[in-house]
Amino acid sequence: MTERIGILGGGQLARMLLQAAIPLGVEATVLAAQADEPAALVARNLVVGDWHDVAVLDQFAAQVDVVILENEFVGAAKLEHLARRHRRLVPGAHTLALIEDKAAQKQALADAGLPVPPLAIIDHPDDLTSLGEQWGWPIMLKTRRNGYDGKGTAKVDNATCAELACRSLGWPSNPLYAEAWIPFTTELATLVIRSVTGEECVYPVVETIQPTGVCRVVRAPAPYAAEVISEATRIAQAAAQAVGSLGILAVEMFLTSAGRVLINELAPRPHNSGHYSIEGCYTSQFENAIRAALGWPLGDPGLRHQAAVMVNILAPCQRQIDSTVIAPALAHRGVHVHWYDKRMARVGRKIGHITAVGADLAEVEARAQSAVDGLEHTMQTGHE
Amino acid sequence: MTERIGILGGGQLARMLLQAAIPLGVEATVLAAQADEPAALVARNLVVGDWHDVAVLDQFAAQVDVVILENEFVGAAKLEHLARRHRRLVPGAHTLALIEDKAAQKQALADAGLPVPPLAIIDHPDDLTSLGEQWGWPIMLKTRRNGYDGKGTAKVDNATCAELACRSLGWPSNPLYAEAWIPFTTELATLVIRSVTGEECVYPVVETIQPTGVCRVVRAPAPYAAEVISEATRIAQAAAQAVGSLGILAVEMFLTSAGRVLINELAPRPHNSGHYSIEGCYTSQFENAIRAALGWPLGDPGLRHQAAVMVNILAPCQRQIDSTVIAPALAHRGVHVHWYDKRMARVGRKIGHITAVGADLAEVEARAQSAVDGLEHTMQTGHE
Repeated sequence: MTERIGILGGGQLARMLLQAAIPLGVEATVLAAQADEPAALVARNLVVGDWHDVAVLDQFAAQVDVVILENEFVGAAKLEHLARRHRRLVPGAHTLALIEDKAAQKQALADAGLPVPPLAIIDHPDDLTSLGEQWGWPIMLKTRRNGYDGKGTAKVDNATCAELACRSLGWPSNPLYAEAWIPFTTELATLVIRSVTGEECVYPVVETIQPTGVCRVVRAPAPYAAEVISEATRIAQAAAQAVGSLGILAVEMFLTSAGRVLINELAPRPHNSGHYSIEGCYTSQFENAIRAALGWPLGDPGLRHQAAVMVNILAPCQRQIDSTVIAPALAHRGVHVHWYDKRMARVGRKIGHITAVGADLAEVEARAQSAVDGLEHTMQTGHE
Repeated sequence: MTERIGILGGGQLARMLLQAAIPLGVEATVLAAQADEPAALVARNLVVGDWHDVAVLDQFAAQVDVVILENEFVGAAKLEHLARRHRRLVPGAHTLALIEDKAAQKQALADAGLPVPPLAIIDHPDDLTSLGEQWGWPIMLKTRRNGYDGKGTAKVDNATCAELACRSLGWPSNPLYAEAWIPFTTELATLVIRSVTGEECVYPVVETIQPTGVCRVVRAPAPYAAEVISEATRIAQAAAQAVGSLGILAVEMFLTSAGRVLINELAPRPHNSGHYSIEGCYTSQFENAIRAALGWPLGDPGLRHQAAVMVNILAPCQRQIDSTVIAPALAHRGVHVHWYDKRMARVGRKIGHITAVGADLAEVEARAQSAVDGLEHTMQTGHE
């Protein structure tokens, strides 16, 4: 019998995983915190509850054979609980423990000889002050856990701000670390898929545009020199090996002003930088995440078109937005609209995305961006 | 609020409609006869029961605003019942009443000046004998209702077989009609989408290969002269107008040995000849069926690649086949596998399909066919 997939989390990543499971004939069960989360709204098999509750985890475990993630901050202890129930974990608890603590993650990568920004644990604001003397300012201060979309980070400009910055990120109860400030030209990303059979594939390297910490645009392929792309690919595959990745691993990288590629962050799950793959690639990140977890042959991650661009739709206001709002965007030729059906989204949060594909990156981006602009304008004004 | 879609039927067409509803943020409810039908297995919102039961229809009606079909043999009376509950029907009950009786369907098309094979109602085997004298033999005998995949048809070679043929199709209780035998070069098909707003679009004309009455291969675009293609397109659009089509209409046609295009059959629902559109076109037939029903702008039906070929997977044996069987097919590069997860399929029934896309029709077809051949071989032997 085909193993049953369990997805920890009920957001849009889980929703798109469910969509990918349908043509594969794979039974998938979602564990969501709320019944109105994006994936919960479309899941045939659903457990609603808090994954910190062992009874909820056990109920979920009873319905699944293999567990994959849509959120790396589930807590390795929860996964160990599932493993004790003989559920296979993709990725394994060891990889997750490494990744969920960003300082440990970066240290593991550095130990494997991979390029990461200089980093240091921050136990006290004074540590930051000393670092400033050593590295120079500014310094990037980060929480070791639970950061995403630019949250959990603070740029510290000088020693006088050190304590304020630490407190703003929850110090002393929240553990912090610091990274040297990296002047970068752009951000790159890719996805490494490693099947439980040992088979591996890598997606094209993309460029991500994150003007406010939240990703706005993803350009595939990244329009940079072949040596940069092959270096980024090599580093991403080595990173997957260094953390013992199983399933899908998203690797975000900086391309520095000096032309070096540094690893910025890993995520052991489908990633926003890979949503373009649904229409842009022969096999989407979601489908390959499922294939890898089941040990089925991996699909071709190659681009189906010369160019694919994804633009995120960010909530312009805090209110429930019905999917009817997407109708005008659907009138744009050659764009693919993905609406997450979030029942209540905070301002600036991702509530959908639009992908366009074609022959020319700039033309494709203009098409996707124009559809998103129109959509966000409609949401803000209530008019087309 | 976005209108809620109701899908009458729980088979693979409903399953693929549900998949298309996810990125649109559209709530869809399936009415399935059994809880283990392909769509029922993945439907968040599901009513299980017999649609001939008014209480079941009412339960379904309470959860939906617009009703679409995956089966034209629902019975117009059922739709009228839903209409009395103020549910919008796409297509309307009038169109369905016309289409579900194939003799009435063909007569309506003939009345609109559209090319159909000569036809006649058969009340008695003697009618067939007279027709044979008039048209010559063979004659195509068909049931007026409930035929599909070559079922409900009989080729009658001469007058001595007339009564046997009629009885084999259920005469005298089952009403029959006859069509003149059309020597055809090939079969063509397309999809006409007509939105409730009046917007209309037409898919590329495809060639369908149906060696045993069941469709085996669909080639997009159909490799025939531009005049043939534009004539088929014109006829399909005129047919949609003639029957007052709303939503999706599949039009199957013959290309005769004399180079004429004749309408063979209409279906007011997503159609097997359009499955290639999931990967082959900018917008799939399933997505456009939903957009049309909601009055949302229609998506581009154009081909995303020079060529797309779909090959059906037909059950080689009658037993439950688990989706693990698809794993070897997934190893074929550049093919897209759709597995319907039928829990029990009769020999020869469609249990999935595989689509390949690319630059060259013959190469693409070879790729898809080779994956299907391997899959069917595995199913038959239990080995790869």
